[in-house]
Amino acid sequence: MENKEKIVLTGDRPTGRLHLGHYVGSIQNRVKLQDEASKAFYMVADIQALTDNAENPEKVRSNVMEVVLDNLACGVDPKKTTFFIQSLVPEIAELTVLFMNLVTLQQLSHNPTIKTEIKEKGLDHSTPFGFVAYPVSQAADILFCKANTVPVGVDQMPVLEQANDIVKKFNAIYGVELFPKINGVVSEVPRLVGIDGNAKMSKSLGNCIFLSDSDEEIEKKVMQAYTDPNHLRIEDKGQVEGNVVFTYLDAFDPNKGEVAELKTQYQNGGLGDVVLKKRLTKVLIDLISPIRARREELAKNPQYVMDILEKGVETARIEARETMAEVRKALKIDYF
Amino acid sequence: MENKEKIVLTGDRPTGRLHLGHYVGSIQNRVKLQDEASKAFYMVADIQALTDNAENPEKVRSNVMEVVLDNLACGVDPKKTTFFIQSLVPEIAELTVLFMNLVTLQQLSHNPTIKTEIKEKGLDHSTPFGFVAYPVSQAADILFCKANTVPVGVDQMPVLEQANDIVKKFNAIYGVELFPKINGVVSEVPRLVGIDGNAKMSKSLGNCIFLSDSDEEIEKKVMQAYTDPNHLRIEDKGQVEGNVVFTYLDAFDPNKGEVAELKTQYQNGGLGDVVLKKRLTKVLIDLISPIRARREELAKNPQYVMDILEKGVETARIEARETMAEVRKALKIDYF
Repeated sequence: MENKEKIVLTGDRPTGRLHLGHYVGSIQNRVKLQDEASKAFYMVADIQALTDNAENPEKVRSNVMEVVLDNLACGVDPKKTTFFIQSLVPEIAELTVLFMNLVTLQQLSHNPTIKTEIKEKGLDHSTPFGFVAYPVSQAADILFCKANTVPVGVDQMPVLEQANDIVKKFNAIYGVELFPKINGVVSEVPRLVGIDGNAKMSKSLGNCIFLSDSDEEIEKKVMQAYTDPNHLRIEDKGQVEGNVVFTYLDAFDPNKGEVAELKTQYQNGGLGDVVLKKRLTKVLIDLISPIRARREELAKNPQYVMDILEKGVETARIEARETMAEVRKALKIDYF
Repeated sequence: MENKEKIVLTGDRPTGRLHLGHYVGSIQNRVKLQDEASKAFYMVADIQALTDNAENPEKVRSNVMEVVLDNLACGVDPKKTTFFIQSLVPEIAELTVLFMNLVTLQQLSHNPTIKTEIKEKGLDHSTPFGFVAYPVSQAADILFCKANTVPVGVDQMPVLEQANDIVKKFNAIYGVELFPKINGVVSEVPRLVGIDGNAKMSKSLGNCIFLSDSDEEIEKKVMQAYTDPNHLRIEDKGQVEGNVVFTYLDAFDPNKGEVAELKTQYQNGGLGDVVLKKRLTKVLIDLISPIRARREELAKNPQYVMDILEKGVETARIEARETMAEVRKALKIDYF
């Protein structure tokens, strides 16, 4: 029964189509969690996407549909999960502004996730203020519906800790039990390496396999995947660690026993990369092609998708208004 | 006719009753500007007050009524000026969050007003994030109704410059002429010294004469006012500069000619402080006692005041919704 009290919030930034990194990092968890949760929300984080894409609203807008299609195609079910768009729930902005008083500039600028991302994005000397604020904004995203369960990548844990700090502070200052402790659900494969062996699969690095890729694209990308650069001839002993093909087989091949045998064979010498890459290609095509087919089917009816979002926004706002009413009462800004 | 296009926004933080510093710094301007403006708004800045009073919401709540009473009593006229409460216009929070992407952390932390206030409030090492954000929040306060005229103290000019920077950036990035350039109207007496001679009249320094002070309080405070510490005997030559009594006579005595004569007499020797203080007491009682009387009358009917605010919120939200619709269109977050 305890499971039934889970309120789950997840979401994506609409900045591009989703890839296998998203699939193992969060979508798989979403599909599982929506069955365990009493309420599940999926948010298209358009406002968050604008924090570092303020100059490119067209990109954000066009990707709203893409990320929703990806999630629907993977089995996030609008009957179980409320799909909504962040910017259409103004209560999230209201909570963001109020939560900003419960966090210090020093806490945010020392947050490890923020520090890393600022560095990665080259924003050291000119950091959009909204970007620094994003842990606060994320706390509001989660708490407007009092979600207590959030699937996250392990690199996002400091952001979740910041949100829990806000929860603790809010409840303590205003003497209420209004917001719940948030539990981060870290995926089994928290961060998928890129096909080039780079630590992160990322659109900007061009090392992604997208959930919308064609069979040919999948094959081509797998054939270019990083393996063991010293494994030149079939009979050479090969390295399994850091070998992207094995990393992916570990993540996606349903037959773990066979993968274990292949690893031994590879390490002893006598197994070529091409055999492995063909196997991985098949595994990924088996995974992605039905997703892609559902995606293409759904894409034919954009109105159906927009209706899901519009209805979802209504549902989300009911929660949001209830929460804001309680917040107003706690902060004594409930005037009339 | 040009005057008629003025849209004025002003406001107070509800953190205490208002004093003579507010009167000369902004209220006088409000009363004048409401006649010149095509639209005038008066905002009770409760959210802004919470940025450094998050732990004391009761203080903010109880002072909402106080600041509105002060303004009504001074002649800010609800028939000419829309009175509203910041937290009841959620579009302001929405704009704040969106504007945060158009400003960098570096700009805000180097803003002279913010730097000074952080220092004054001793918040150097633990700065509420909402406090750092306050120029952004202030831009949203002003721009939700497209105000182009804002009475400010001279120390607040950098905050207004930041708002104009946001205006420029928003209009340029999104290729619109949505927001106007904001003109700061600096009062003739931009910052009134405290009765103790301290550069700022401030409740926390205990050097204020409030618009609600009784005649006895006014007299008592004036008698303690800082004059020339070397002017010990009536026949001594006295110093006019830095002499609070003369500063106040300059600001409030309607008879400028007589004040000029008194200055000469004081400088030449032969004029005692008590005579001057009695004159100032009378001047201030003449100013404050009718305000106080109106204030007491209004305070008898708090429902009348709340009705003004409730109606004002409705009017403000009509403007806010129109502006937000345009903003949504510009940012391409106008989905349905």
